[in-house]
Amino acid sequence: MKSRAAVAFEAGKPLEIVEIDVDGPKAGEVLIEIKATGICHTDAFTLSGDDPEGAFPAVLGHEGAGIVREVGAGVTSVVPGDHVIPLYTAECRECDYCLHPKTNLCQSVRATQGKGVMPNGESRFSYKGEKILHYMGCSTFSNYTVLPEVSVAKIRKDAPFDMACYIGCGVTTGVGAVIYTAKVEPNTRCVVFGLGGIGLNVIQGLKMVGCKQIVGVDLNPAREAMARKFGMTDFVNPKDVSDLTGHNVEITGGGADYTFECIGNVDVMRVALETCHKGWGESIIIGVAGAGKEISTRPFQLVTGRSWRGTAFGGARGRTDVPSIVDMYMDGRIQIDPLITHKMGIEDINKAFDLMHAGESIRSVVEF
Amino acid sequence: MKSRAAVAFEAGKPLEIVEIDVDGPKAGEVLIEIKATGICHTDAFTLSGDDPEGAFPAVLGHEGAGIVREVGAGVTSVVPGDHVIPLYTAECRECDYCLHPKTNLCQSVRATQGKGVMPNGESRFSYKGEKILHYMGCSTFSNYTVLPEVSVAKIRKDAPFDMACYIGCGVTTGVGAVIYTAKVEPNTRCVVFGLGGIGLNVIQGLKMVGCKQIVGVDLNPAREAMARKFGMTDFVNPKDVSDLTGHNVEITGGGADYTFECIGNVDVMRVALETCHKGWGESIIIGVAGAGKEISTRPFQLVTGRSWRGTAFGGARGRTDVPSIVDMYMDGRIQIDPLITHKMGIEDINKAFDLMHAGESIRSVVEF
Repeated sequence: MKSRAAVAFEAGKPLEIVEIDVDGPKAGEVLIEIKATGICHTDAFTLSGDDPEGAFPAVLGHEGAGIVREVGAGVTSVVPGDHVIPLYTAECRECDYCLHPKTNLCQSVRATQGKGVMPNGESRFSYKGEKILHYMGCSTFSNYTVLPEVSVAKIRKDAPFDMACYIGCGVTTGVGAVIYTAKVEPNTRCVVFGLGGIGLNVIQGLKMVGCKQIVGVDLNPAREAMARKFGMTDFVNPKDVSDLTGHNVEITGGGADYTFECIGNVDVMRVALETCHKGWGESIIIGVAGAGKEISTRPFQLVTGRSWRGTAFGGARGRTDVPSIVDMYMDGRIQIDPLITHKMGIEDINKAFDLMHAGESIRSVVEF
Repeated sequence: MKSRAAVAFEAGKPLEIVEIDVDGPKAGEVLIEIKATGICHTDAFTLSGDDPEGAFPAVLGHEGAGIVREVGAGVTSVVPGDHVIPLYTAECRECDYCLHPKTNLCQSVRATQGKGVMPNGESRFSYKGEKILHYMGCSTFSNYTVLPEVSVAKIRKDAPFDMACYIGCGVTTGVGAVIYTAKVEPNTRCVVFGLGGIGLNVIQGLKMVGCKQIVGVDLNPAREAMARKFGMTDFVNPKDVSDLTGHNVEITGGGADYTFECIGNVDVMRVALETCHKGWGESIIIGVAGAGKEISTRPFQLVTGRSWRGTAFGGARGRTDVPSIVDMYMDGRIQIDPLITHKMGIEDINKAFDLMHAGESIRSVVEF
């Protein structure tokens, strides 16, 4: 079938809006009509050419929502008409990772997903007879895409696509880091580094679980107002303090119970760890650092009771947990609407990247 | 009263065996007759002068067992005749740390303990009229010593002092790291770096909780036999493998569930972290690194599910948990006897340091 898609033909170039060919789903696969997709920093990172695993040409996009239109042989968990969110972190419920109580990093389709192909090694996309690669197992920048059944989370039908799509990455990454990875308790004090799309979702996760102090740290003073709306109680601009770690420790009364690094800066990761309270503070790395960058600290920081951890996709098991996060949104326990600052058609998708790079958007969403 | 003691008059010099004066216990304090004391690397570290917090003259020693001989006003938890283990990590059961479920780092006497004095700011030791400092709140190299009540763990009377003393530091640090800090589950695979006194206690803790694979790593092949007796299933000499991390990951079938660094080498700490299994592996730092040393890794190691943590005194709450560890020993669930490789009188205590530096002892114990 034919599908409109924004194709990354090569690194560093704008996406091109073309009509590609999409093959139907094979055994264990699902054809999805994407109704809306967010544009995330990770798409921009890969498009830039800095992603060492990036391969072209490819259909990018990994933060979508849509409707199942066709299922391949053996698919039992979804039927045509089901509303779904594509998962870049699959959940097969059978591999050693899925059966382990401490991780969400299902490995069932990881090797082929990393190569931009379906589990059987093929691509379902082509343009003028040439194969085009998949991306993060999702490729939501195409109106129609094909995913393994294990990479599809079925969600309720009353959730609007233009908001639900953000749950496919940013919302789950931020809220999930709080509730699944850190398991933050009520009455705790937390510090969030970076008040972009991820940081704001961490903040609203912290508010939801009943934190008593939520400190936000960002160099951009324009972030303060929105962060306060999401639950931030204290704002710190590193430009205004001489000793960021010392200041954070002081205003949290001895250090934070949990800190979250949502930037990808290894120096900030160190500050985030050392902002933790002696004895029990835990620091969670969410941001993705540049290739080759390393984190450092004195081991004394850990020996005196701080923990250094990380999270991917917020520790969420996609098929199990994503529907719960959709419920949180539909119930009003978390907000998404104020975060979707821009909407556009696929023909304007390159503007979404421009808005992101300019720091003007929190999230842009393309609707098909 | 008079007491024989080994006094560290200055850094880098042997201890001197002299008769010191010990004042009786004041309010909230306990006078203890030390019956046996271990000699630990931490004593040697302070004696060497490398410990930035080391102060002299002082009565060193922090791994003892003895009998309460007198109690000060207001002491309610022990009476003369009780058998006890001195605690360098107090447990007041009232401070913010004691009341927090995630830490054992009671702060009630920390500030004064770090200065070598009792909580009221005084020393109870003197020699020829000059004050001598306490050390780690214990000073077990004196036949009689004075401790705050909160720094005394009451233990059963049938436990032999020459073995129980080791529970005051090494045994609890190693076994506790397994059961209190890491909370290692049965059927897991673990790797222990460094097979000295701490590492062997980690190994027997792992054996006790039912690990299915216990890998020991040490440069000294002479450590293998004893470690196997304590439960080690696989021995790795870093000299025999080209890629220590890769080798560890391979023999554990993808990485360890838990790793323990028992050396204090920051390069080994990195190997220990990266030996952990993707998704859920946790690395626990036990060893104390040199001043100014830093640990490093790529944040990707944490984002993909590994955790970096540390432990002090094995995460044990002294008054609560030390008696349980004494029970483990008396029941035969853990061993101590083979670890006490040398015993001597206080007059030969400097030989214990020589044996340690030569790597000939696991633990030397001085009996009064």
